[in-house]
Amino acid sequence: MGKPIILITNDDSISAPGIHNLIKSVLGLGKIYVVAPDRPQSGQGHAFTTETPLRLHLIKEEEDYIEYSCSGTPADCVKLGCQMVLKRKPDLLLSGVNHGSNASVNAIYSGTMAAVIEGCMMEVPSVGFSLDAHSWDSDMSHIHSYIRQITEEVIKNGLPNYVCLNVNFPKKSEESIKGVQVCRQGLGEWFEDFDERIDPQKRKYYWIKGRYEYKDPDPGTDILALRENYISIVPTMFDWTAKEALNSFKQRFENV
Amino acid sequence: MGKPIILITNDDSISAPGIHNLIKSVLGLGKIYVVAPDRPQSGQGHAFTTETPLRLHLIKEEEDYIEYSCSGTPADCVKLGCQMVLKRKPDLLLSGVNHGSNASVNAIYSGTMAAVIEGCMMEVPSVGFSLDAHSWDSDMSHIHSYIRQITEEVIKNGLPNYVCLNVNFPKKSEESIKGVQVCRQGLGEWFEDFDERIDPQKRKYYWIKGRYEYKDPDPGTDILALRENYISIVPTMFDWTAKEALNSFKQRFENV
Repeated sequence: MGKPIILITNDDSISAPGIHNLIKSVLGLGKIYVVAPDRPQSGQGHAFTTETPLRLHLIKEEEDYIEYSCSGTPADCVKLGCQMVLKRKPDLLLSGVNHGSNASVNAIYSGTMAAVIEGCMMEVPSVGFSLDAHSWDSDMSHIHSYIRQITEEVIKNGLPNYVCLNVNFPKKSEESIKGVQVCRQGLGEWFEDFDERIDPQKRKYYWIKGRYEYKDPDPGTDILALRENYISIVPTMFDWTAKEALNSFKQRFENV
Repeated sequence: MGKPIILITNDDSISAPGIHNLIKSVLGLGKIYVVAPDRPQSGQGHAFTTETPLRLHLIKEEEDYIEYSCSGTPADCVKLGCQMVLKRKPDLLLSGVNHGSNASVNAIYSGTMAAVIEGCMMEVPSVGFSLDAHSWDSDMSHIHSYIRQITEEVIKNGLPNYVCLNVNFPKKSEESIKGVQVCRQGLGEWFEDFDERIDPQKRKYYWIKGRYEYKDPDPGTDILALRENYISIVPTMFDWTAKEALNSFKQRFENV
């Protein structure tokens, strides 16, 4: 087999330090195509663009390294990247490193993870990486070797169809990372609070603000792993069926 | 107990016939607050808005019926609706009727279902309704009584925490709807095709196009129910953990 074709994207944009930390960590592992948003797309969830056309701009082309920016969302980057840049499916899709945790319900809002799900739906082994720190200045030197090792493992052994990885790293601290924990998605909730302001035309407008509250009563979650300075890996799927409710709901709803 | 507080939203916008079909179907079942996007937000997935402020406009205020438009996404409508309009959680959240199926993987891209998941995360019984037909002229008269019955059932018996409903209706045909099937989310894939064009400045741009391909080998899916002229109800959750992969992944990744 030749060099694997690796598609890299993110949601913080091609300008974000996170994606360049990711690229640096995996250089040499394959032929790398970067197709990333030309501006921040954080909180875009699984949005894709149908109301406006999309643009692609070639930024850099070197041996085994091609970089494009795209005017769309992370999901658009994957779709457009595969169809118009690679003209095939990649052998591996990597997304991130996101500036901010995508543990717990954050995965649901995450453009980083939307790109990963997009890869997973097309049966491409796909991994999202996020750092539990929002600042663009965050030191990511402690995670480079882990990103490379996890990526090498996935290149070597693949992933089961329709299962992808949501990898979250603790932020850099004086203590070394303790290792990896394979976890489930922890239960939590965002409580919004809106900042109501008045514009110069005397009309109200609102800025969204929120605070996250962890509310999982049981062990084994990504949030707990991060708190204990472990890397969390959640095997993630896109089948949203609440299977345990199927039988009781048949009785309730099949005779309405 | 007084009248339940019902929050209604959608992703096709306050101007779409679908939301007015939904409102008409449930009038009288509670105190209705509509907070819906002021323009189409289809394909917005679970996007929410942090880069720009949000606006709310009161459109109509009658006894037990209050209608607002909102400048944000469906998820924004739920967050802003609860915090700034209701100033509490609703007793029930309804979303739709979407113009187009949200069966199978369409749920993942769906703003309609993002609003439902948003309600579900805050422990509000939440139901999304979609019609398997895209036209804004689609006749929805055949689904009004079903919407009302399903809504009454949920008001009466609630839903388990962290489980919501993704309800899809077959489009109107000469044959009557055969009934309801409680199903799992069928497996399918969108294959994108981009329409490449040249703008007046001679620069390339791309319109997204796609075709959906059903690829589930097993029975019991929402897509099959719709094809047989049944209403599909998928109990839906937001825990994306691929639980069956947890053990094997512990062996693979906890020692990298």
